[in-house]
Amino acid sequence: MTRPSGRAADENRAVSIELGYARHAEGSALIRMGGTEVLCTASIEYRVPPFLRGKGQGWITAEYGMLPRATHARGNREAAKGRQSGRTHEIQRLIARALRAAVDLKALGEMTITLDCDVLNADGGTRCASITGAWVALAAALDKQQKAGKLKRSPLIAQIAAISCGLTAAGAVLDLDYIEDSSAQADANFVLTAEGGIVEIQGTAETAPFSETAFTELLRLARCGTAALFVAQRQALEGLS
Amino acid sequence: MTRPSGRAADENRAVSIELGYARHAEGSALIRMGGTEVLCTASIEYRVPPFLRGKGQGWITAEYGMLPRATHARGNREAAKGRQSGRTHEIQRLIARALRAAVDLKALGEMTITLDCDVLNADGGTRCASITGAWVALAAALDKQQKAGKLKRSPLIAQIAAISCGLTAAGAVLDLDYIEDSSAQADANFVLTAEGGIVEIQGTAETAPFSETAFTELLRLARCGTAALFVAQRQALEGLS
Amino acid sequence: MTRPSGRAADENRAVSIELGYARHAEGSALIRMGGTEVLCTASIEYRVPPFLRGKGQGWITAEYGMLPRATHARGNREAAKGRQSGRTHEIQRLIARALRAAVDLKALGEMTITLDCDVLNADGGTRCASITGAWVALAAALDKQQKAGKLKRSPLIAQIAAISCGLTAAGAVLDLDYIEDSSAQADANFVLTAEGGIVEIQGTAETAPFSETAFTELLRLARCGTAALFVAQRQALEGLS
Amino acid sequence: MTRPSGRAADENRAVSIELGYARHAEGSALIRMGGTEVLCTASIEYRVPPFLRGKGQGWITAEYGMLPRATHARGNREAAKGRQSGRTHEIQRLIARALRAAVDLKALGEMTITLDCDVLNADGGTRCASITGAWVALAAALDKQQKAGKLKRSPLIAQIAAISCGLTAAGAVLDLDYIEDSSAQADANFVLTAEGGIVEIQGTAETAPFSETAFTELLRLARCGTAALFVAQRQALEGLS
Amino acid sequence: MTRPSGRAADENRAVSIELGYARHAEGSALIRMGGTEVLCTASIEYRVPPFLRGKGQGWITAEYGMLPRATHARGNREAAKGRQSGRTHEIQRLIARALRAAVDLKALGEMTITLDCDVLNADGGTRCASITGAWVALAAALDKQQKAGKLKRSPLIAQIAAISCGLTAAGAVLDLDYIEDSSAQADANFVLTAEGGIVEIQGTAETAPFSETAFTELLRLARCGTAALFVAQRQALEGLS
Amino acid sequence: MTRPSGRAADENRAVSIELGYARHAEGSALIRMGGTEVLCTASIEYRVPPFLRGKGQGWITAEYGMLPRATHARGNREAAKGRQSGRTHEIQRLIARALRAAVDLKALGEMTITLDCDVLNADGGTRCASITGAWVALAAALDKQQKAGKLKRSPLIAQIAAISCGLTAAGAVLDLDYIEDSSAQADANFVLTAEGGIVEIQGTAETAPFSETAFTELLRLARCGTAALFVAQRQALEGLS
Repeated sequence: MTRPSGRAADENRAVSIELGYARHAEGSALIRMGGTEVLCTASIEYRVPPFLRGKGQGWITAEYGMLPRATHARGNREAAKGRQSGRTHEIQRLIARALRAAVDLKALGEMTITLDCDVLNADGGTRCASITGAWVALAAALDKQQKAGKLKRSPLIAQIAAISCGLTAAGAVLDLDYIEDSSAQADANFVLTAEGGIVEIQGTAETAPFSETAFTELLRLARCGTAALFVAQRQALEGLS
Repeated sequence: MTRPSGRAADENRAVSIELGYARHAEGSALIRMGGTEVLCTASIEYRVPPFLRGKGQGWITAEYGMLPRATHARGNREAAKGRQSGRTHEIQRLIARALRAAVDLKALGEMTITLDCDVLNADGGTRCASITGAWVALAAALDKQQKAGKLKRSPLIAQIAAISCGLTAAGAVLDLDYIEDSSAQADANFVLTAEGGIVEIQGTAETAPFSETAFTELLRLARCGTAALFVAQRQALEGLS
Repeated sequence: MTRPSGRAADENRAVSIELGYARHAEGSALIRMGGTEVLCTASIEYRVPPFLRGKGQGWITAEYGMLPRATHARGNREAAKGRQSGRTHEIQRLIARALRAAVDLKALGEMTITLDCDVLNADGGTRCASITGAWVALAAALDKQQKAGKLKRSPLIAQIAAISCGLTAAGAVLDLDYIEDSSAQADANFVLTAEGGIVEIQGTAETAPFSETAFTELLRLARCGTAALFVAQRQALEGLS
Repeated sequence: MTRPSGRAADENRAVSIELGYARHAEGSALIRMGGTEVLCTASIEYRVPPFLRGKGQGWITAEYGMLPRATHARGNREAAKGRQSGRTHEIQRLIARALRAAVDLKALGEMTITLDCDVLNADGGTRCASITGAWVALAAALDKQQKAGKLKRSPLIAQIAAISCGLTAAGAVLDLDYIEDSSAQADANFVLTAEGGIVEIQGTAETAPFSETAFTELLRLARCGTAALFVAQRQALEGLS
Repeated sequence: MTRPSGRAADENRAVSIELGYARHAEGSALIRMGGTEVLCTASIEYRVPPFLRGKGQGWITAEYGMLPRATHARGNREAAKGRQSGRTHEIQRLIARALRAAVDLKALGEMTITLDCDVLNADGGTRCASITGAWVALAAALDKQQKAGKLKRSPLIAQIAAISCGLTAAGAVLDLDYIEDSSAQADANFVLTAEGGIVEIQGTAETAPFSETAFTELLRLARCGTAALFVAQRQALEGLS
Repeated sequence: MTRPSGRAADENRAVSIELGYARHAEGSALIRMGGTEVLCTASIEYRVPPFLRGKGQGWITAEYGMLPRATHARGNREAAKGRQSGRTHEIQRLIARALRAAVDLKALGEMTITLDCDVLNADGGTRCASITGAWVALAAALDKQQKAGKLKRSPLIAQIAAISCGLTAAGAVLDLDYIEDSSAQADANFVLTAEGGIVEIQGTAETAPFSETAFTELLRLARCGTAALFVAQRQALEGLS
């Protein structure tokens, strides 16, 4: 059985990352993974949240949003409803945790970086695209701070990217699009470093529990998939120098 | 005294309108006016709000948002704050009123069209760009409904566009960018039809009251400015046929 | 065709302004325009909002509310719903902008004046009555500050009043009541100064676009209508000395 | 020791009740008790809340509000804060419970009456004035329904009024104003029927527990005080016939 | 006619108070009165709310909650609804007022004690059980502060407890359970001190007004009922020394 | 290096599960894992959320809360703040997903089961204890439905339990308490079935990325830990028959 898109099991969707799309942000990246498109910005403020005051370290936080018509049916605007959904909360906590793992917070100093990830078009994998794009926006913002003399050395300690994998009718496959995602038996999101370390794993059985063997295969696919993302991130950042 | 941008008093910023940017929406347009960029989508639902049920007519509503980092300093995300600002309310009510003037609501039938205008980059004039872009998204959505046989005839009764004008240190000028807008003595937003009718006028003294003569000059400039927008709207829609 | 009320096209409704209705406020005015009745208060605090701190100027803000049964059918109480409507936001922003145009904010010093306009009975034109009444409350509050030696000179730089006009079945008419307002082809609210300057214009096509000629006629009517309001404001303030 | 106002211990403040102040409401009363002034309206809807559907009875509910500048210092507008205070909740629950005791809910049929009590000026005793005024608004609304043939017989089964009493430096006193209320050792609100029945008692020690004897004296004072209120209510309703 | 539970008119339900159930709190008590079970905690912070800053006194506040399934039918979680009900507000204000009467706030110093009362199982009388249990949690927390040398002397000036009484088909009875409470003609909650003083009285007619005589009988029953509670409170605190 | 508690690396904390603690719920369990204590209830309603209407299947949802003083420092009550934290959203989504994996939703029919998990005392691992306890509450509620003839066969298709593991100064360890959790290099929560299937994996690097090898060791520990939990669950349910 083949995948709906005709892709091979270990084949990523086309990825492109456009640096600097948001002109006012200290760093920004518009990432496209197939039909999924997320605008990621990094904003810097020279203060930290109350629980970190006087501790001589910085902080990284994230917010995630989806334009109401990024999806097949229009979703209610969270600003109009007056509350963010549980899904939004879960995703933005994941993005922030993941990106904090890429940075030496002590080296940041008393600085807060907010990563905004707004989905313009959605076709599956928006949280993973957000993380991959946010890393580029973050790296660009830190580079700018360094060039402006506000940071002596780069606090960036890891290159990270994220990808989803899943067990579908076509077997274990890489980089699920919306159709695959909505009918998968299980799916997992992996946040990995370029050195091969694991930053975050979220695996969920949708229709039936899965085995350790299956899970190991998903992790292997994720390693393949992020390799391509690491290259795309580095290419996007070449525009900086 | 010349304008900060070097433009002539009656000179628009460059305008471009990209049709279909949001792939899932019934109609969409990404409008750029200089450094201002707004993604407008039209979403159709086959029901009407409670106050219109059984009255045999449709409805058009609008929502407006600005990505947190569309501006120089990051703004708080309204979804996270849990409420939309007064400014957001004021703008989305204006957009909806303006677009309702373009449509025969009886001819729509029991259908609600929601126009979402999300600002990706802001450099002044976002509410006017939203109206101009939303008209294109609306026209595209109605065209699609007609082609699908869901509407016998087009309920579109007017082509509308909007532009801001203001009294600045350089005199009465057209299409203010952010720098001009933030220091103008007075500014006014005009929503006009291609036939020359007035749909909405909002004129506000910022630092001193203005005269009827000055206001008449602003309206004259607005007629110039919208002429170019009407052309850009029609060109964008040529992609439909 | 005559107006529902039998008034001439350029005839205001009876206006009365009662000074000092709210005993605790620094300034207050209960304004009645026909069946519309609004209680306006001016409250003074010796601090400014964060964005103005240390800038040596004051601020004027406004809040608007309607008692639940000020209208034909009971409206939901906004405090109980937990959010103010878009209409409320739009109106209170208009009131605040208009009144700021009446005051030299530098001369105020670090002082915030909040204008509360609460509609007790509604019969059209509540936002205009709010502005006209709020100016009286504001003038009374400033007079009190001056007499108490807290202001060396009056920061009041203009007398302002507001009135609505509209295109109805009876032609262009002045000071619309609810019946006229709900069936007008177009209506416009004008905030003018006693010297004839324009502070704010809000013109909206309800059922069809209108022409520049029609708009000019509405402005002419507004000048007639505000003349009577300026007199009523000054008479109300005579009670101060 | 005399009372700040010079009143005798068992002396009410002047009371006046103006019927029909809110022109659109089915019933309304503007009640003044000394410097306290509350606009009470009764609004009728021909439906009941979900928990009463199909039970063949009606419902009475209440909402309470205070205009921001009814008091010495401006209070935040609850609609702007987005939530009603605990005090507001407590008071509006009391008003509703009290008024339900005045009505045969079965005889009402499937009808909801909402009593809105909005304080225009506050000088102590606003919850009691609200109850006394709301009874007049309610009686007027029911009379109107009866005259319109929508109720065969009056569902009004009791005349109720409310008054506060307290233990102050001047001893046990009736109808506390703000100064007395804010320094009382204990105060109590009594809702009584014209036949002498007790509908609600709320007694609270503010600075020290009180004795049963003292409480009995407060109840005696309340009986004196409500006698005058029952007369004022009946006089106000004479305007109906 | 006998009570549904078979208890005598002046018979309390079995009461037990377990000290220290919440391990992290400065003081805590799990109180059971028949089928009603409330976990009460006292939390200490060395600061006071803004309105008390610099006044050299402390503050006591309370919050009340009910687990969603403490009752027969699951209630909506207030945290999920985003607002506390009027009932919750009313009860937590009562708890706080009652407990403040037990403490010399001057002797507390700049300290805030928050009493959290969370109902695990409900069978009538939850607000009274909350007050009785909160007093034990409060006493334990104060004892701990004294032993730690943070208070020179105990600021506790009274022992207080609360109980409900009502007029039911079985006459005037003590300590209503849910069945009695939901069908009582009238009920009253009494907060009393061990010395016999009255701290708070809340009497409400549910189906018909009641007489002074009946009320006096309810107060007599309350004195019986609280006697047993005062013993249980003291026994629970014996575990402290 | 030994663990702070002195436990062996693969040693669980003492677990106890008390069935039926919440008397009104269809099913309930009070679970204690060391110093962590969670009251879990299962509530049944015979309707489904809108998105499932008419699809002939049931639904399982979950809500999570923590009593304000379940922790070392009092946390703000979410009901009082008016919004649930991102952490709360993330946890309750996890609980619901996990438990849905234990049930054949088709076999449930049009029934919604809400699992409330309220933390009474917290010492790490509250989300895992919630899942393990909720499974018992769920099983009890389904058993009751079956005995009442409302379900022909049990829709329970798996026994599930959850446990946390982490990389600490003492190496890879099982069932982290608060002290271990707050200083772990990485931690992971595992939801497993008694048959050995994986329902959910959430692994997070806190201070440094971890390796696949380390992760595999954490999974091995989780299998040990859940074995004891499956026994405790079955013992608790023996009380049913």
